[in-house]
Amino acid sequence: MAVGPSIFPDMPVIEGVRIGVASAGIKTPGRRDLIIFELCEGTQVAGTFTRNSFCAAPVTLAKGHMAEAATRYWLINTGNANAGTGEAGMQAAQTCCDALATRAGVAANQVLPYSTGVIGEPLPTQKITDVLDEVLASCAPDRWADAAQGILTTDTRPKGATRTVMIQGQPVIINGISKGSGMICPNMATMLAFVATDAAITQPVLQALLSETTEHSFNRITVDSDTSTNDACMLAATGVGVEIKHDADIATFKQALQEVMLELAQAIIRDGEGATKFVTVSVRDACDEAEALKVAYSVAHSPLVKTALFACDANWGRLLMAVGKAGVEALDVSNVTLSLNGLCIAEHGARANGYTEAAGSRVMAEEEITIDIALGRGEAATRVWTSDLSHDYVTINAEYRT
Amino acid sequence: MAVGPSIFPDMPVIEGVRIGVASAGIKTPGRRDLIIFELCEGTQVAGTFTRNSFCAAPVTLAKGHMAEAATRYWLINTGNANAGTGEAGMQAAQTCCDALATRAGVAANQVLPYSTGVIGEPLPTQKITDVLDEVLASCAPDRWADAAQGILTTDTRPKGATRTVMIQGQPVIINGISKGSGMICPNMATMLAFVATDAAITQPVLQALLSETTEHSFNRITVDSDTSTNDACMLAATGVGVEIKHDADIATFKQALQEVMLELAQAIIRDGEGATKFVTVSVRDACDEAEALKVAYSVAHSPLVKTALFACDANWGRLLMAVGKAGVEALDVSNVTLSLNGLCIAEHGARANGYTEAAGSRVMAEEEITIDIALGRGEAATRVWTSDLSHDYVTINAEYRT
Repeated sequence: MAVGPSIFPDMPVIEGVRIGVASAGIKTPGRRDLIIFELCEGTQVAGTFTRNSFCAAPVTLAKGHMAEAATRYWLINTGNANAGTGEAGMQAAQTCCDALATRAGVAANQVLPYSTGVIGEPLPTQKITDVLDEVLASCAPDRWADAAQGILTTDTRPKGATRTVMIQGQPVIINGISKGSGMICPNMATMLAFVATDAAITQPVLQALLSETTEHSFNRITVDSDTSTNDACMLAATGVGVEIKHDADIATFKQALQEVMLELAQAIIRDGEGATKFVTVSVRDACDEAEALKVAYSVAHSPLVKTALFACDANWGRLLMAVGKAGVEALDVSNVTLSLNGLCIAEHGARANGYTEAAGSRVMAEEEITIDIALGRGEAATRVWTSDLSHDYVTINAEYRT
Repeated sequence: MAVGPSIFPDMPVIEGVRIGVASAGIKTPGRRDLIIFELCEGTQVAGTFTRNSFCAAPVTLAKGHMAEAATRYWLINTGNANAGTGEAGMQAAQTCCDALATRAGVAANQVLPYSTGVIGEPLPTQKITDVLDEVLASCAPDRWADAAQGILTTDTRPKGATRTVMIQGQPVIINGISKGSGMICPNMATMLAFVATDAAITQPVLQALLSETTEHSFNRITVDSDTSTNDACMLAATGVGVEIKHDADIATFKQALQEVMLELAQAIIRDGEGATKFVTVSVRDACDEAEALKVAYSVAHSPLVKTALFACDANWGRLLMAVGKAGVEALDVSNVTLSLNGLCIAEHGARANGYTEAAGSRVMAEEEITIDIALGRGEAATRVWTSDLSHDYVTINAEYRT
């Protein structure tokens, strides 16, 4: 199940990026489960990673390699997360990096590894190294769609976004793909997202752009409040195209990057495990953003709110409950206003005047719902995006060994 | 569905307490939905209440009345929470207190109101006041079981606990009943619990005893991480029996009270919405209790852990994930040990040596599971109790208008 039509955009070529895809049969024979991104010399790379203490071996290794050397390859496998694998997992990730580096004629720390799939199983390194020649040979600049398909696990559809902006009279392209459907409440980044541009941007600026846009995209979504061990979001600037260093150009670029990041993050929610609704929780008139965020997540994580959304039940009592339990100091509930898709449902701590169940039910029948919460305390605002809690969520997670 | 056999204990009479039960037809015609506790003159009363900002009108009123006067009546209705009802809700609760007080010949602030059921509907005060004579006439000392049945909503079984301890050579009795099944993550108390003793205890000591024992019982359970608007836990000491004022006697009494409170709290988890498992999350070797609690709730709230429990899947990867996302500063995962019912499943950040899936599956097939997490950082420990996340949880909450 997923919310809204599945549309994968035409992705233009990013000069300096080539993508290879192969089947290593890690979990399912024949499945294209091994993907590499080949980045041209001179490419700058930025990354954000999970803050889960039990972060996976590839996350630890990728962070280390990134700090040591100029990245030339992203090596991604699905079907096995190489998480909860201890020292042996670190060795396994290193073995794969070494093997690719040797074949590609680069140093091992120029390869960054990413894994997603079942936690706690040993990574079958032999299966991966066996197809590295094949995946290298398959590299081509026009395989973004294949890569988007290849990195999926419990996802039901590929996720991609692209923007082209004019900077200094020349087109700058940003492409991105993402994956993730469950264990989604990223704290730094989503399960996996890979974004690239042909612009030339220095690494510190690139890292700042990635961190800022991640904060308002991948760090604002939740399917199930569970933060993965393997989250990583990467951004590469190949430098083949326009050089971006002036503030105005950075602002133009950042705007386009933010759109790509948000589209990729929202695509994860639309494809959230068992999702039947795409829900925006918008909190405003808060004292500060931290307070707004606390309320937004309290609503977006509430199982009772999420089951009411699944049931198309305009159960505003559960919304009040979720706002009230957020722990906002001295919240005056008589100043709180709640709306669903613009329909005011509660104010002054009670049902809104003129609100009818019929009107509420009409709104809740929609596939896309915006829950607007005005706290009446200040000027700060934020938004998070979430899905509902359906029978399919339970079915998927009672059957799938993450 | 519920976990373990349904056993309601024989509840002895508490001298000074009489209980009345009647049917006001608040939500379901014929259902016994109105309960009163009549407390003899001289009774001391302590209470803990929800910290949800949107707390219900009866919670606000009960807190006020308790501070103003000596309590003589607890007035409880099911079928309507009188929450999210604004100023009109306060009036409605006051009307009910006034009406009972007039008939019973006490002051209005000697009546404490409690409501549970659907949020946001006006309380039908007329239906309640119509049966107050009847419920007063029905008062008798031996109706604890009727009261336990009367206060239920989505619960599937009545919940009661009793202890008799010898103090100064005489028996002291503690009886308690509770209700609650969903919207359960109490922050001060559970949905509703009423406990009484025949001992004589001063109010400040009684309040301290209630607060301390609540902290390690009702404040340590979670069904769905959602904190209700109506939580209240009350303790009355009628003073008919032994006077308890010396430290040794207080300690003896507290031990028995803690047992009653824990049994009532755990009964709520056993009857959690859709529950098929009774789960103890035990965290030890933490730096302090706050840290232990953060990890315990991170595990107990995780939808992925809870669906794995439902599936009887010893998915220790999800347990590592939930420990890791708790936000413990500088957690060294190589020192963390995880066991299920005494079977070590993970250590040193990976699967335990000698652990087999078969052994894990055998343990997970049990109805009662203890997840033991040793953090390897210090001496502090805590436990919380939770249930699993099943299809029935979704069904119940997609159909029931809380």
